[in-house]
Amino acid sequence: MALYVQKYGGTSVGSLERIESVADRIDRWLASGHRVVVVVSAMAGETDRLIDMGGRLGAEGGGREMDMLMSAGEQVSIALLALALRARGHASRSYLGSQVAIRTDGSHMRARIVDMDTRHLSADLDKSVVPVIAGFQGVGPDGEITTLGRGGSDTTAVAVAYALKAHECQIFTDVDGVYTADPRIVSSARRLDAITIEEMQELSSLGSKVLAVRSVEFANKYKVPLRVLSSFVEDDSQNTGTLITHEETAMEQPLVSGVTYSKDEAKITFVGVPDTPGVASDILGPVGDAGIEVDMIVQNTALDGHTDFTFTVRRQDFSHVMRLVRDVRDRVGGREVVGDDDIVKLSVVGVGMRSHAGVATKMFDALAKEGINIQMVSTSEIKISVVIAERYLELGVRCVHSAFGLDQ
Amino acid sequence: MALYVQKYGGTSVGSLERIESVADRIDRWLASGHRVVVVVSAMAGETDRLIDMGGRLGAEGGGREMDMLMSAGEQVSIALLALALRARGHASRSYLGSQVAIRTDGSHMRARIVDMDTRHLSADLDKSVVPVIAGFQGVGPDGEITTLGRGGSDTTAVAVAYALKAHECQIFTDVDGVYTADPRIVSSARRLDAITIEEMQELSSLGSKVLAVRSVEFANKYKVPLRVLSSFVEDDSQNTGTLITHEETAMEQPLVSGVTYSKDEAKITFVGVPDTPGVASDILGPVGDAGIEVDMIVQNTALDGHTDFTFTVRRQDFSHVMRLVRDVRDRVGGREVVGDDDIVKLSVVGVGMRSHAGVATKMFDALAKEGINIQMVSTSEIKISVVIAERYLELGVRCVHSAFGLDQ
Repeated sequence: MALYVQKYGGTSVGSLERIESVADRIDRWLASGHRVVVVVSAMAGETDRLIDMGGRLGAEGGGREMDMLMSAGEQVSIALLALALRARGHASRSYLGSQVAIRTDGSHMRARIVDMDTRHLSADLDKSVVPVIAGFQGVGPDGEITTLGRGGSDTTAVAVAYALKAHECQIFTDVDGVYTADPRIVSSARRLDAITIEEMQELSSLGSKVLAVRSVEFANKYKVPLRVLSSFVEDDSQNTGTLITHEETAMEQPLVSGVTYSKDEAKITFVGVPDTPGVASDILGPVGDAGIEVDMIVQNTALDGHTDFTFTVRRQDFSHVMRLVRDVRDRVGGREVVGDDDIVKLSVVGVGMRSHAGVATKMFDALAKEGINIQMVSTSEIKISVVIAERYLELGVRCVHSAFGLDQ
Repeated sequence: MALYVQKYGGTSVGSLERIESVADRIDRWLASGHRVVVVVSAMAGETDRLIDMGGRLGAEGGGREMDMLMSAGEQVSIALLALALRARGHASRSYLGSQVAIRTDGSHMRARIVDMDTRHLSADLDKSVVPVIAGFQGVGPDGEITTLGRGGSDTTAVAVAYALKAHECQIFTDVDGVYTADPRIVSSARRLDAITIEEMQELSSLGSKVLAVRSVEFANKYKVPLRVLSSFVEDDSQNTGTLITHEETAMEQPLVSGVTYSKDEAKITFVGVPDTPGVASDILGPVGDAGIEVDMIVQNTALDGHTDFTFTVRRQDFSHVMRLVRDVRDRVGGREVVGDDDIVKLSVVGVGMRSHAGVATKMFDALAKEGINIQMVSTSEIKISVVIAERYLELGVRCVHSAFGLDQ
């Protein structure tokens, strides 16, 4: 009688047929003697449709109303799934975020979960009722509907699993697990049976879209057992997915667990700025003030009292940043400002790096052999990221994947 | 600074363009110095789309989940209208039924309003915020979402107008008022400037779809001033609609205010049943037990200890009732059971009937002159209804309309 929290994303409930298939799966898990609590996203495309309508009416500054609008999406999918479960003979009850009191800090469109109330859910489970909870939404201190931002349903699922002390939080999605690299680029990429939560956290931050980074952070903080698996594979025995572990169990961790990339990158270089204190904050101050997130920052050693200063931002912010920094340049001086949004970030991740030297060298060698120039480097304890020209993306991912023996 | 509650139905908010047009209208009312509270239905077609999806998944007995599902419809339209009002420079807040605590008796899909909480609304009005309330939905004693049944948004609007002691409850719809007859059938039909609430109540029960009968009953009970007007006429000075009055102000009321009809009829006749006590309840008992509403009932004087017993039901219930009464016939006896769903009910309504005789005669004469046979008759203090064959519908409405001089 293990308790599972199962989260189904938008494509998993994207049509009535998909909802029937999800209900069939839950039916099988219940028949195996398990207890299940379900968290569901809006049907694929619905949230975008609602946002688009709101935008066309002039949504500026209407965070409260946008939350009201968007949260209708999950309301539909939870009711439909509960009906499909009832049609299969299971008592089932759908719940809005407010009804299981997923309390948030109240900020609209990017709320953070504060706590929740499990009374309804525990009572349901005692009576063999299957609760179906709306992901992505919660209720602020003043009773207002608040949404959690993109990927918020994953976070809801992890929070529910934590609150109910579930055996496992299962994220059902359109891929069947976490891979050593994107299988669309590397045909020899392998599905990982397990990965550490720290690695998963890096992968999510670095552009892998399997799990929302906030949900992984949450799972890490509260040690929630997490598994990613497919909602499209019918045979449950073949659908073991990837377990995200909280301990480095193997005696010897692999050097590198996976290669990932992000196309959502652009870089800005200040060439020949004076190497005086305060220049970096002069440059980045206005960018931060505009609410734009800066990712990598590189400053070279100064020569003749001048240096080059480079940073990366998300590609959608590129033209905005270029406008901002033109003014900055007039103030701080320097030869010129060069922008480039024709780049990608390629990263290798692995807890094995901690105890092994030479990972960076191996990666740089592999890229050099293919004639791929490295424009920027950034490292952490368990990852190395490089910026390269976008045209080398596929070649770069494949050669690095192979250099670390990930295809074996 | 009069306070108006304005209700906009599904066709009035059926597209983004329609929502913009509603926002423009509210903008004009506010510019005239009025205060406005808005009640909105789901966008036209949305409720049916949701019900259809639910039905395809097996909605039987899923009243709680159907309410969860359907109430998402208004959630979208209130948010969109609030956004459109914000885009026009008005502070506006959308509210779910639960958020203004429209408390109901808790019965799903046909809940009745018990009371509501006007604190949010009063606070908003004090700060010139325009509240936009979801019609059709409320919250049960246990925090469950409950819907009010078809036409429920009209009832919400009347309840809000009563609770806020509004100057007028304005029902904006796709017709510009109440007519002496259906203008699609009678080209000379005239819009009434005013009609008594009792007449409106009869018209709504008798098949006129301008206002939901429950909302008229509610308005009558609590003396809420009500006006029906068009959301499609741009010029507000031309859009005076029909006022529903609570007093018979004119010295001399017209004999008849309007002619109306309902096609949603079917009749069942038990021919030659024994005229013994208990037969009527033997026949109607099983029908009532099945939750089917019976409208007209006629029993002729007995001849030779036998009589004919006829009643009408809604057309959608006809085949169900025919199956039910076959068993009954075996028990109560009688020559045969004859069903007919090829009928319509034609009614004249007017408070003037109270003080004038001869209304029935005038109506029957008019029909007889056109060779239209009357199959059943039913009367109340202010209405006379007859059942005729459906093929005479248009002819019947026109000749009765003309006989009472309604086209002058």
